[in-house]
Amino acid sequence: MLSFRHQASAPRATLDDLETPCALVDLDRLSANLDAMASYTVVHGLALRPHVKTHKSPRIAAEQMRLGAAGLTCATPRELEVMSEVSGDLLLAYPAIGSARVKRVMELPREVRVSVGLDSMIAIDELAAGARAADRDVDVLIEVDLGMHRVGVQSAEEALALAMHVRASAPLRFAGVMFYPGHIREHVSEHHGKLTQLASDVQHLIRVLRDAGLPPRVVSGGSTPLAWRIHEVPGVTEVRPGTYVYNDRTTAEIGSCSWDDIAFTVLGTVVSTAVPGQAVVDCGAKALGREPMRGVAGEGFGALFDRPEVVVARMSEEHGILDLSNTDWRPRVGDRVRIVPNHVCIVVHLNDVIHGVRGNQVETTWPVSARGRQP
Amino acid sequence: MLSFRHQASAPRATLDDLETPCALVDLDRLSANLDAMASYTVVHGLALRPHVKTHKSPRIAAEQMRLGAAGLTCATPRELEVMSEVSGDLLLAYPAIGSARVKRVMELPREVRVSVGLDSMIAIDELAAGARAADRDVDVLIEVDLGMHRVGVQSAEEALALAMHVRASAPLRFAGVMFYPGHIREHVSEHHGKLTQLASDVQHLIRVLRDAGLPPRVVSGGSTPLAWRIHEVPGVTEVRPGTYVYNDRTTAEIGSCSWDDIAFTVLGTVVSTAVPGQAVVDCGAKALGREPMRGVAGEGFGALFDRPEVVVARMSEEHGILDLSNTDWRPRVGDRVRIVPNHVCIVVHLNDVIHGVRGNQVETTWPVSARGRQP
Repeated sequence: MLSFRHQASAPRATLDDLETPCALVDLDRLSANLDAMASYTVVHGLALRPHVKTHKSPRIAAEQMRLGAAGLTCATPRELEVMSEVSGDLLLAYPAIGSARVKRVMELPREVRVSVGLDSMIAIDELAAGARAADRDVDVLIEVDLGMHRVGVQSAEEALALAMHVRASAPLRFAGVMFYPGHIREHVSEHHGKLTQLASDVQHLIRVLRDAGLPPRVVSGGSTPLAWRIHEVPGVTEVRPGTYVYNDRTTAEIGSCSWDDIAFTVLGTVVSTAVPGQAVVDCGAKALGREPMRGVAGEGFGALFDRPEVVVARMSEEHGILDLSNTDWRPRVGDRVRIVPNHVCIVVHLNDVIHGVRGNQVETTWPVSARGRQP
Repeated sequence: MLSFRHQASAPRATLDDLETPCALVDLDRLSANLDAMASYTVVHGLALRPHVKTHKSPRIAAEQMRLGAAGLTCATPRELEVMSEVSGDLLLAYPAIGSARVKRVMELPREVRVSVGLDSMIAIDELAAGARAADRDVDVLIEVDLGMHRVGVQSAEEALALAMHVRASAPLRFAGVMFYPGHIREHVSEHHGKLTQLASDVQHLIRVLRDAGLPPRVVSGGSTPLAWRIHEVPGVTEVRPGTYVYNDRTTAEIGSCSWDDIAFTVLGTVVSTAVPGQAVVDCGAKALGREPMRGVAGEGFGALFDRPEVVVARMSEEHGILDLSNTDWRPRVGDRVRIVPNHVCIVVHLNDVIHGVRGNQVETTWPVSARGRQP
């Protein structure tokens, strides 16, 4: 297993040798981010089951496991297949709807313990049929909506009804509940108090299930924005943060990390300064995504790492327009910049490889093995 | 060369056999779209140099060439490399800034005639140095900003200065000018009159260059939104539409095509109906992109092909939230939908393969060979 701290170094390339646009990860910051979350969860007695959607790379997943993660969280069959090589305990935090999806889950190596999160009777029936055909135990977590309003049942009573249906659907096993508190940015003042409500809702949910004889073994919650506060919600047993490995402009702006904790940037080149007041870089929507800031105000689609006041104000597919109105900096064609994207998970999905760097040195390059959909 | 009209059929899969999310192209509509643009350009005596960014697939590029295209337009070295197998006349409509980019241009097969669009002295000098080292002729188009305010010199006089510098920088050859009128949606009422201004600007540009003894052989303009009107701009010799092959929600809404001309959809599955008033499909930002409507109002990030009143109102990476407030339709978990994305070029970039369909039949599957950045 590869540690990012002590890597053998081959003859080294520098950032100047890289073709742009490309994705960079600062290896020291990555290590620090991995350590910090591992420590937080140990201190608070929480199981850490990182969501791999952010990095989609077995190399980083293996490092997360080495640092004590209980298992990994995945969103797609592809992520499960790739991650089955580095962890024996995988959660598909996504309903396995559709025969192809169920089949790919059932075909994972048999030594891998698989859990699935879901929120409907249909999802239970499809999964149970697949599990019976494959003669395979599958743990089920009932997904509950605690304010995100994306997926999840709307009440503890609905959760109980699904839990009872799981119990009656061997070889499925009721393991517990999960929720995704992605609507809460506790560090943002308007969100104060939401954590208290969440704690109350979680307590109620656990009580209803316990009173019915179905106490949840697993209560899985926690995103990167809430990672450092989720221990304030009694009963939570597990967290599933993803973004913390790399961080991004949003996690910094909402206060979940500092700007200096951002490990991921997109390296770009200024390709045009012909239009006054702006500079054009080769990082457009196909390199940076077009993600807004989430849960906090913020202009543009990314900001310069070294000059956060300069944002990517507009975009085409292969063009990013840097707004120069808040800076005296006047770049020349050919200058290179490092851009912090608003939302790193999307950017990783746009790249086939990631370059691991320390300062100006490129130490390693790894594939984003779990991107895409194909087996 | 493969014609999409007369394809040998293997034992056929149907849409039900496909795993979601995935990208579908209706082969009959694709053929009709390819034919329509080929006819338009023939009728008006315009050279057709389609931009491959939309499809990134040599199979479709070959069909464009078979139907009379003069050559192809590319945005990246990867696109040039892949398309050099199907066309001997390629335009890089992007400044070749950076030694790696120049090198990849120069290493294209020598029988391929290469043109590059650019807007700075630095770009000319870098390209000239590369061309001299490779002993390779390269045609240059000066990019002019005629209202898009993205790249391009700001006046005819600046264009002339660059053209003169090209002439003095053998083996570069001054071939003409290019512009991208992506700011004009002539079918949208607020944009009426912009075409008249464009025609006047193009006339002035040609006159300034001609008077200086540098008449442009190529005057390259024209996007999909303007494709059907660009013949009204005297002097234009060539068009570079991309989106017309597939079309999307934006091209339909601005009136460049009808809804029935949309060839591209994303096939998705309803995975949750737990939250009232909405249904969740497995097409989030990683499957659909997060593109706004461009140049016209329109809510959401895509709309159902069969029910355009149902839009993808919100998104996470793997979740798309269908707003059910404008419909009586109440989908069940497991139902399948076809979504028309706002901006198809971005969606193609998110996929590794495309499925060619006729009705419910999957006739063929092809790779998006020119996606990504690697050689």
